[in-house]
Amino acid sequence: MTDDERAIREVVETWIRASRAGDAATVLSLMTEDVVFMVPGREPFGREAFEAAAGAAGPQMDGTSEIVELQVLGEWAFSRNRLDLTITPPGAETLRRYGYTLTLYRKGADGRWRLTRDANLLAPVG
Amino acid sequence: MTDDERAIREVVETWIRASRAGDAATVLSLMTEDVVFMVPGREPFGREAFEAAAGAAGPQMDGTSEIVELQVLGEWAFSRNRLDLTITPPGAETLRRYGYTLTLYRKGADGRWRLTRDANLLAPVG
Repeated sequence: MTDDERAIREVVETWIRASRAGDAATVLSLMTEDVVFMVPGREPFGREAFEAAAGAAGPQMDGTSEIVELQVLGEWAFSRNRLDLTITPPGAETLRRYGYTLTLYRKGADGRWRLTRDANLLAPVG
Repeated sequence: MTDDERAIREVVETWIRASRAGDAATVLSLMTEDVVFMVPGREPFGREAFEAAAGAAGPQMDGTSEIVELQVLGEWAFSRNRLDLTITPPGAETLRRYGYTLTLYRKGADGRWRLTRDANLLAPVG
């Protein structure tokens, strides 16, 4: 495994750990300023909309994220991740979401990898 | 626009035109052998499953595909496309599907660009 691959895996692990802990500041530090999130049924959104949704009253999240493919393309990289999550919106029942992401990462001038494009294909289960 | 950008735009245009015409052979010529398609609610699938679904009894498709972002990363590239499609499965009613894709392309040894990873976030409309 190259240093870049290791660094990207660490971004993915830190992302899921911080999400689980409700640590929005850490999650935000792992994405580029121009990040674009794509999910079915709504227009793509950026950092500010992500931040608003992940605020103090945001959903509780738990689960696993496994990298099934990772390729480094110079200063960019992509991964396909398999996620199995439980999400509990404030005051609502826990939902299970399972599926894949196709995610692009970019290496910053500071040498750190950050998430920059994310297509989230998770769907309801059960 | 660079030659690579122009060539990738032509792949996207040819793809949608061939899909509309039910020309599966042309669509298949525009993807790599190891292509991976990702859609919500099912496991990722490759060329053979795509071919089976696009066979003689496949759905009729019409609509538009607009590239909203395109970046070339050496021998790889990605685009975000906005699609607005009508799909008519054999013997069934026409469905509208609207949304985005996050698509990766790779330049072959023959200099031709082909689709190689595709996350399809289209959702039902109306």
